[in-house]
Amino acid sequence: MSSDRLIYVPLGGAGEVGMNAYVFGYGPKGRERLILVDLGVTFSDMDSTPGVDLIFPDIAWLAERADRLEAIFITHAHEDHVGALGHLWPQLKAPVYARNFTARIAVNKMTEQGQDPAQVKTVGTLPEVVKAGPFKVQFFPVSHSLPEASGLVIDTPAGRVVHTGDFKVDKTPGVGEPFDPGMLGAIGAEGVKVLVCDSTNVHQPDPGRSEMSLIPALNELVANARGMVVATTFASNVARLRTLANAGVENGRSVCVMGRAMLRMIDTAQEAGLLTDFPPTISPEEAKSVPREQLMLLVTGSQGERRAASAQLSRGSYMGMTMKEGDLFLFSSMTIPGNERDVGRIANALSEMGVDVVDNASRQYHVSGHPNRPDLEHMHKLMGAPVLIPMHGDHRMLRAQAQMAIAAGMRSAVVANGTMVDLTGDAPQVVDEVPTGRVYLDGNRQIGAMDGVIRDRIRMALNGHVLVTLIVDEAGAPLGDAWAETMGLAEKGRGGKPLVDTLEDEIADYLERADRKTLGDDDKLTDALRRVARQVTMEELGKRPEITVVVSRLLDE
Amino acid sequence: MSSDRLIYVPLGGAGEVGMNAYVFGYGPKGRERLILVDLGVTFSDMDSTPGVDLIFPDIAWLAERADRLEAIFITHAHEDHVGALGHLWPQLKAPVYARNFTARIAVNKMTEQGQDPAQVKTVGTLPEVVKAGPFKVQFFPVSHSLPEASGLVIDTPAGRVVHTGDFKVDKTPGVGEPFDPGMLGAIGAEGVKVLVCDSTNVHQPDPGRSEMSLIPALNELVANARGMVVATTFASNVARLRTLANAGVENGRSVCVMGRAMLRMIDTAQEAGLLTDFPPTISPEEAKSVPREQLMLLVTGSQGERRAASAQLSRGSYMGMTMKEGDLFLFSSMTIPGNERDVGRIANALSEMGVDVVDNASRQYHVSGHPNRPDLEHMHKLMGAPVLIPMHGDHRMLRAQAQMAIAAGMRSAVVANGTMVDLTGDAPQVVDEVPTGRVYLDGNRQIGAMDGVIRDRIRMALNGHVLVTLIVDEAGAPLGDAWAETMGLAEKGRGGKPLVDTLEDEIADYLERADRKTLGDDDKLTDALRRVARQVTMEELGKRPEITVVVSRLLDE
Repeated sequence: MSSDRLIYVPLGGAGEVGMNAYVFGYGPKGRERLILVDLGVTFSDMDSTPGVDLIFPDIAWLAERADRLEAIFITHAHEDHVGALGHLWPQLKAPVYARNFTARIAVNKMTEQGQDPAQVKTVGTLPEVVKAGPFKVQFFPVSHSLPEASGLVIDTPAGRVVHTGDFKVDKTPGVGEPFDPGMLGAIGAEGVKVLVCDSTNVHQPDPGRSEMSLIPALNELVANARGMVVATTFASNVARLRTLANAGVENGRSVCVMGRAMLRMIDTAQEAGLLTDFPPTISPEEAKSVPREQLMLLVTGSQGERRAASAQLSRGSYMGMTMKEGDLFLFSSMTIPGNERDVGRIANALSEMGVDVVDNASRQYHVSGHPNRPDLEHMHKLMGAPVLIPMHGDHRMLRAQAQMAIAAGMRSAVVANGTMVDLTGDAPQVVDEVPTGRVYLDGNRQIGAMDGVIRDRIRMALNGHVLVTLIVDEAGAPLGDAWAETMGLAEKGRGGKPLVDTLEDEIADYLERADRKTLGDDDKLTDALRRVARQVTMEELGKRPEITVVVSRLLDE
Repeated sequence: MSSDRLIYVPLGGAGEVGMNAYVFGYGPKGRERLILVDLGVTFSDMDSTPGVDLIFPDIAWLAERADRLEAIFITHAHEDHVGALGHLWPQLKAPVYARNFTARIAVNKMTEQGQDPAQVKTVGTLPEVVKAGPFKVQFFPVSHSLPEASGLVIDTPAGRVVHTGDFKVDKTPGVGEPFDPGMLGAIGAEGVKVLVCDSTNVHQPDPGRSEMSLIPALNELVANARGMVVATTFASNVARLRTLANAGVENGRSVCVMGRAMLRMIDTAQEAGLLTDFPPTISPEEAKSVPREQLMLLVTGSQGERRAASAQLSRGSYMGMTMKEGDLFLFSSMTIPGNERDVGRIANALSEMGVDVVDNASRQYHVSGHPNRPDLEHMHKLMGAPVLIPMHGDHRMLRAQAQMAIAAGMRSAVVANGTMVDLTGDAPQVVDEVPTGRVYLDGNRQIGAMDGVIRDRIRMALNGHVLVTLIVDEAGAPLGDAWAETMGLAEKGRGGKPLVDTLEDEIADYLERADRKTLGDDDKLTDALRRVARQVTMEELGKRPEITVVVSRLLDE
């Protein structure tokens, strides 16, 4: 059928770091059979999403076409690739394919949200093939910052697409498969039409470094430590946890892992048979009786998360352990943009206790899990695809990788969330824009990013909240005085008089001179009281608070 | 008088980057005559201080002793050193000393807040001496990222203290005095008892680089640009502005400066005679008729400030200028921790317009204004002081510089905000803790950091706000139904029913079964209604909102 086409629509991740969700389709226009690659989350922040529990890509477009969705493929177990699975699966109801370690995490995600874990199918790497409608999909191993990360070979009647997933070039990653140019070159040699490739580190000019390159510096750091050593990293980076634990053991320290997320990741990796050589650890209970100079703790909270072990240690203690003068705290991690203040708060609080806080400023204690610019060039060459679509990253990262590819003679286009491109021909063609956006998990509700709930919260946070209540009788006469309450506003105004008193007095003055028409009309009266309250707070505080007015009108009985 | 002592008490800046305020005192215990070095601000953020306009150090301790305050010295014109002057001067009422450029900015700060600008005295560099009670103070020039930054030689009967202010080691700073080891060595050779030294870059291992080292890379970048070039940096970094403007002019571009803060800084530097060789610029009006490939804009907003020129360009246009495909935007700056999201938002939005966004990731387009670790070693040696007190920086920065100094054979102590040390003897002795903290400028009110106003705003931002009003008659019988309003909460609960309806229904149910004792007692009734509202929102939304209950009790008339 000459009218069949191969399409690609990112619903999340293309224009941001986080909440990856990429749709591929093949078939007649508007009736393409679809697959989804990854279904991740993004985390909230006070600036734009205060109080939000998780952020999902808005998959309404795909949900409306769920009958055409053949399968969901999860490349790896990071939250920004699998975190939304349990929450959004009910809208999609397609089988989920992943490799062993990832599948175990995906099963957790399904179970936690009351979904059927049997929907998650464990598959091996190529040459094992998953048939999904017109797609034949093979997982291939890539090195990344957690076990069993994968790229996908997606064969279609229109040709082969390779989706790299997140990856790094690391020939000695410690845990998980090394970067394998032979295997990758073989995939490329079979002919790749389109390469869809991780963009997050495109602005890093130097080649990426290997996990194993950290060993000497970490060993030296631990060897020179006097007191207790506490190290944090991303919970899923089990290779780093092993590197750190080995540095402890080699320097005569007992190692104790603290923090649920980290323990779960280690358990999962061990259950999946991927972490057979993790050194022996002791329990927090046992750790209490080990002299601190013989102890090393591995703890959660590298991003300054308020409830994680590192934050609790910085506030005093975690599971009975406390840090003190002469101890060492290591951030074996990078700080995700936006988390700098939280991380800084912990580093400062620990320093105030006399703890030496070491981070990756010297670039000795962390390596990234993503491909730097030279690594991208390497991948582009191995695949030899004529077309590159940059995937996963801020818009300017996508743009930079596209420019790189074009400079090297490839064809490329920046395909941001919601843009549908037709990949059938020699060059990607934009054929449609589909609605995308963000959905917030807030408590147990999913709310749209644009429906104003979070905007109202931000306004209250910036401006404070004034509440005015007034009772009027049927005839429109105020019954008693108005009542004002404030929240998040200075208690006293310019003259030192309590703000609520000034509000109530000014409203009383207003009511005395208000005409019957206004008093008799709830909307008019509400507007008038809001105006008085706005004027008073501007005058007294120089602020424009959110104002809620409740006029209660008594009915004759 | 053998009982006289030399004391040092930081009130701000020691344990944080920002809001510098350092007190020195000399005299009998408890009757020391005092001087204050710097009086700066810190900026608010959504995480901890939403809606706050500015953050000041809490100087209540000093204000209570204002009769003993001889003078205020301002080392340089950055906001974190002079920004609080106009706001807090009324509590101190002491003469203010600064060099020419700084004094002009200080005069602005006083005038803006309605204070007497004549309180600001302009002084020259050493050997000019300001006598302030027992103190003889000389300003000495240091290189920094704005004109006429200064350190202070503070001679006291107990010996000489050198306070470095913020500085960098730069022998070719472009504008302002170069780092002068001869002059500094001469100050040191006269005998320095205590060195009080900038700590902010102590974790940077490489020597600092010179402003002039940026010229080749900036020239190349501008030479290769196709469309319009727009560059941003800190408004006060007039050396950088000149470097950037020169790069424009040398590549045949007309230069237009946009953004009030930047224009004011350039004007002030020119009025002070410090910027005689700034290349000719054109007005925004003239810029409109210059072809974009011959135009370079210098704009405010390097930190992503929402109202600055860069943010406005990223949202569409600023003063009639718009960016488009093929233009270049340069962040010739570093991002202050905490501003990453705001900066990233602008970079992304510009990229979406097709603009090439370049930042300092390659370390070619910005140099810091602070001393890196080797620069600190250099300063320590030039001063030859036996005692080092680390100043300005997060606690762990202070701690690292103290450790450096101790390792080099000096005596040192981390003296954080509120710690009073006696510097009279051979080693600093902690002698007191004085109350310190933060004061928020919120609208036109100063409010204490601990008085709960901002905490309430953060709670509303995280949890939303529910308002319940109920009218009861004298006998305790509800008059009509309760009324519920919500702000910042999902409109509908689990079953799809509007949350306010569920709230009102559940409250009605409660009121039907409530006993007369509860109905007759405002406090009990309020608590009971709050409990119902809390239960409903937890059940329906999984949230714990802030809840305001207003019970209005009608009196018999």
